[in-house]
Order: sequence, then structure tokens, then C-alpha cells
Amino acid sequence: MTLDGPVLVVGAGLLGTSIGLALRGQGVDVALRDVSRENLRIATGLGAANTDASAVRPRLVVVAVPPDHLAEQVAEALRDTDAVVTDVGSVKSAPLAEVRRLAPEGLRRYVGSHPMAGSERSGPFAGSAALFDGRPWAVTPHESADQAAVAVVEELARACGATPVIFAPEEHDQAVARTSHLPHLLAAVVAGRLADAPREHLALSGQGVRDVTRIAAGDPGLWQQIITANTTALEGLLRDVRADVDHLLVALSGGDRAAIADVLGRGVTGTAAIPGKHGGPSRDETTVFVAVPDHPGELARLFGDVGEIGVNVEDVRIDHDPAREYGLLELSVAADAADHLLEALEARGWTTHR
Amino acid sequence: MTLDGPVLVVGAGLLGTSIGLALRGQGVDVALRDVSRENLRIATGLGAANTDASAVRPRLVVVAVPPDHLAEQVAEALRDTDAVVTDVGSVKSAPLAEVRRLAPEGLRRYVGSHPMAGSERSGPFAGSAALFDGRPWAVTPHESADQAAVAVVEELARACGATPVIFAPEEHDQAVARTSHLPHLLAAVVAGRLADAPREHLALSGQGVRDVTRIAAGDPGLWQQIITANTTALEGLLRDVRADVDHLLVALSGGDRAAIADVLGRGVTGTAAIPGKHGGPSRDETTVFVAVPDHPGELARLFGDVGEIGVNVEDVRIDHDPAREYGLLELSVAADAADHLLEALEARGWTTHR
Repeated sequence: MTLDGPVLVVGAGLLGTSIGLALRGQGVDVALRDVSRENLRIATGLGAANTDASAVRPRLVVVAVPPDHLAEQVAEALRDTDAVVTDVGSVKSAPLAEVRRLAPEGLRRYVGSHPMAGSERSGPFAGSAALFDGRPWAVTPHESADQAAVAVVEELARACGATPVIFAPEEHDQAVARTSHLPHLLAAVVAGRLADAPREHLALSGQGVRDVTRIAAGDPGLWQQIITANTTALEGLLRDVRADVDHLLVALSGGDRAAIADVLGRGVTGTAAIPGKHGGPSRDETTVFVAVPDHPGELARLFGDVGEIGVNVEDVRIDHDPAREYGLLELSVAADAADHLLEALEARGWTTHR
Repeated sequence: MTLDGPVLVVGAGLLGTSIGLALRGQGVDVALRDVSRENLRIATGLGAANTDASAVRPRLVVVAVPPDHLAEQVAEALRDTDAVVTDVGSVKSAPLAEVRRLAPEGLRRYVGSHPMAGSERSGPFAGSAALFDGRPWAVTPHESADQAAVAVVEELARACGATPVIFAPEEHDQAVARTSHLPHLLAAVVAGRLADAPREHLALSGQGVRDVTRIAAGDPGLWQQIITANTTALEGLLRDVRADVDHLLVALSGGDRAAIADVLGRGVTGTAAIPGKHGGPSRDETTVFVAVPDHPGELARLFGDVGEIGVNVEDVRIDHDPAREYGLLELSVAADAADHLLEALEARGWTTHR
């Protein structure tokens, strides 16, 4: 099965533009709409649409607008067309309730969805046909959705290069509360403590705190909408977090090491529960460190050597070096390949360690 | 000035072995001691020592044992030798108070320190002469320390390739509470929520939650000692965190978007306060994404092209791809070089986006 156009994409931001580009790449007819003439001009110029939105009779409408405007745009699309309608918002239950209220007669044609892809940048210039390649794309049918409509939204995900994964709307919201919204809130809380710190204290920042706080740099205006829309799922988790923090405070003041170790131990269990690369079980990997001079060309030389040695690199980081003009490269490789890689790199003159 | 040996290193784990290797590389005489004969044998076999510990009269003793045994080992070294004594523990105030009690007469020869380097692995096999290269190494003199002793410990840091940074012990502990211990605890709390999750929910895990929780995989036994030793500095920060969480709970239940945006906004400020690479101001960087087939050799080909294009890569990640056999590489580059890099990579046949 392939996706039948024309498809009307409402919202020419990062996601809408990327969907338009991906579908055009598959030869599907696409029309774009946006309240911003500028965004529309840019996205169309990039090739995200080929059809006039005012004249189109779409088979599918994809609503890709900020969370605050989602439900009203979905309802409008259900009223104005006889198309299947989906959206690509980060939260599913609250908009569904709103659509149910605003456009009950069209509800069976609405199936929400949520591609697990994004960028720290936003707007049509950040759009890309490759944005969804290989990512999961949650498809979240409600109980009265047409099966045919569900199939169309799954086909949309596949046409964009993603893998559709079916979730009930409430399940989806609980899942992303845990895997995305709560981590975001607590990253912001940790980063907020850095904002209070004497500047010289931050000289001791290592890779750990950089990793924990990285996502807290995201747009507060957008995240505030996402967080607010997922209140129900987040409240329970945040109450659990408060209980953990209370527990830690009591344990600290009482010197209760077992209680502290318990919280830390559950953390270890949690990190091990995250699925491995390619969705498989988490693999036994080891980190290998290599000192790399901070010049163009040195990374190429290193990866040239790694390639010749024949070891597959599962992940890679450049560890920030606060004092010298070179980086420490962290290579994650299969545990049973690490010794071979270290020896072979040392033999080629690289400074390495585990 | 150079470091005068012999140096006695107490503890042949990751840090002690690495210090021995680094000093031996500088031609300094090193003796090693450890309660574990096995560790001692491995570290000596790796070349971390060249002198018999039982006969040595050290000029400097470096105590590199777990936090729980630090103070007693420092006090013993002060009593048994006339050397300068330092340690490399993660927390400085509590051990200092203990040393003050156990060995007041030798106190002026004790200057604590803390190299900002480590590894997810532990033990002598993980040791490396390069472990401290270019890292900050906090040196934490108390008010009655000899200036000459402070100078010796600074020289130790430099001899290991690190950059000494002077902190008062309490300042150091407050700094690492913010930049290391609190992030570790909250990473564990977030990861703990994943341990509770229905397995299928974790299929929606992206790079964000992986980054936030990565350090929570660290050894709970060691971290429990570190956390417990830094209770004073951590309690205040944890109370601030509880206040933020309470604030968020009230804001969520009351739909108070301004309050949520406020917490998120302080997070953005905090991430911007972390110093940039090489200790300079944080630079304006942009992320560029490139799809890379998951085979040995492909990374080399990519970095070869990036090197020829002449753009310096500030950081790099392989984004995990749950469904396909290739990775999405995130390259951080100077914002003003991104367009050039994207165009040049596309021209060489790579699929890219921002």
C-alpha cells in the first residue's frame, strides 16, 4: 500500500515542512497552509509542497501546529473536509478530548500521531526529508476511529521513512511523560541550580552535568505548552519524584546509606531498561578513550584507522577539554572488541585508555 | 619546578594506577601500596611503580582509596612519614575535619585535591597515564596548610598533565554538589521512574532521556559514599529541588503556565552558564545531522570528507536508530560554518539536515 494524495499539511514549521519534503520525495501531492506567509514561502521554496492549498481536496490532513492550537485546527479540518485527519503533537489525550467536544461528527476520521523526531532548531529552514528516517512514529487511535483511517496514518509514517508504533492515547502520554517530559523538567531543575551558582564553581563542570542538562536548553515557550497539555500523566510521576527527594533528604540527614544506595540502585536498573540501539536488547559495550588533536583532519585520520582495524563504533562523543587544544574521544564499542581496538590504535601511535 | 620523588601512592585502583603511570612517564620514582595484592600486582605490572613501598621514604604521599577510608589513610601517612600528603577524593570538607581530629600535628603537611577525571570502569586495568591530560585538578588547601605543601600538590597535578585550580575545601564541595552530585542523584531519580515503566513504553525513548540518565549507571556503592560524604552541601540544593518540584506540582494542578515557563527559563539560563569547551565562553554552535550507514569504514569516509571540507567538529554523537541499520550522526560545529558544511556534504552524496 502506498499513501494516496493529495495531502494537506497545516503548519509549515520544522515538522510540517519535513513531512512535506518527505512526501514530495515519494511523489505524493502536497499542499501547505500556514498563518505565516513567510513560513509558507520558505517551505514551498524548499520544495515541501506542489499543490495550491485553497483548491485542494485532500485525502489526508496533517496538522503540525503548536500544542495550543492543535485541537481547533484538527476540528476545523474535520469540518471542512471529508479527509482522514491526523496531528503530530507531543501529547495525545487532551487534544483528543477537545476534538471530541469540537467536532464529534468527524471524530472517526481523526487518528492522532507523534513522530519521535525533532531538532533543537525550529521553523521551515530546519526542515528535512530525512528527519523521520528510521525513527518510531507513535500512532494513537481512539476506540471509535475507523480502521481505514488508522491504516492511512500508519502509511503516512512509513512514507516519511519512520516506523509506526500503535499506542492508546493515554498509554502514549504516560510513556512520553516518563521518557521525555519528566526528564525535561528535571534537567531544567538541575540546570536551574547552575544558574544560581558562583561562576567559578562551574569550572568543575564535566561531561556528566552537560549530558544531564543538555535538553534543558530547549525552547521554554514550546515546552511549557507540552508540559501543560500532559498534566495528568506528569502529576503522578512528579509526585513520585517528590517522594524520592523527600526520601533522600531524610536519608542524608540521618546518614541512612542503605536508603541512598536504594535510590541509586533503582537508577542503575532504569538505565539498563532503556532499549539498545536498533531497538534490540541493550548490548554489552565498553568505552574506549582516544586523545585527538583539535584540528580538522585528525578525526578523519582516527576514524580511518578505526575503519581499517575493522571495529564498528556504536556511539561516539568528544569529551570537552577545558584546558588544552585537543579532545578526548569516547568510542563505544562491543565489549569483546575493545582490547583489540586499543592495541591496534596504540600501535598506530594514538594515545588511548579505557 | 618539577615534582621531586619518590612518591608513595596508596591505593592501586583507577586513580592511583593512573597517577603512578603518569608520574613514571615523567621519570618520577613511584612506590605503590594496596590492601589488595592482586591490584598491586596488576598496577605494578602495568608500570605504575618502580620502587619498593616498604623501604621508601616518600617526599609526597597520594592517598587514592574509596571515600570511606580516606581520612584514616591520610592520617596514617601524616603520622608515618614527614612527607606532604594529599588525597584524590571527590569530597574535601568531611575528610579534612576527620584528619584534623586524627592527626592534628601533621595537618600543615596535608593538602587535599580532586582531579576532575574518571571512567565508568574502575580498578587498575582501567588506569592510564593519559587519564588526567588537560583536565582541571582541584587543589583545596585549608587555612593552616604550608604554602610549600600546596605548591607540591599543584606540581603533582601538572606532572599528571592536569591544570591545578585552587578552591577552599567548602567551596569545592559546594561546586561539585551542584555540578556532579546533584545531577547524579536526579539522573538516578529520573532513571528510577523508567525502572517502574511498562517495557513497551520505553520504545519511545530518545536521545534526551538517554543523556539525562547516562551517569545514573555509575557504581551505587561508590556513589553512596560520595553522596554521604557531601551531605552538608547537598542538603541545601536538594531542598531547593524539592521547592522547585512542589512549585511545579502546584503550577500543573492550577494550570499556571507562567510558573512552569519560569522553571524552564531558569533551566535555559543554567545551561548557558556552563563554560564552553577549552574553558572559554560558550560558543555559538549548531548541530548538523548526517545519516551514516552502520558499517566500519563509513565514519572514516564521513570524517575524511569533513576534514577535506575544513570544518572543525566541536562535538559529535551517534544518535541511536531504533529501526534501521544506520546511525544519525550529530555534528556540533560553529554556527557560521554549518551552511557551508551542509552544502559540501550534500555535494559529496551525504544525506544531511540541521
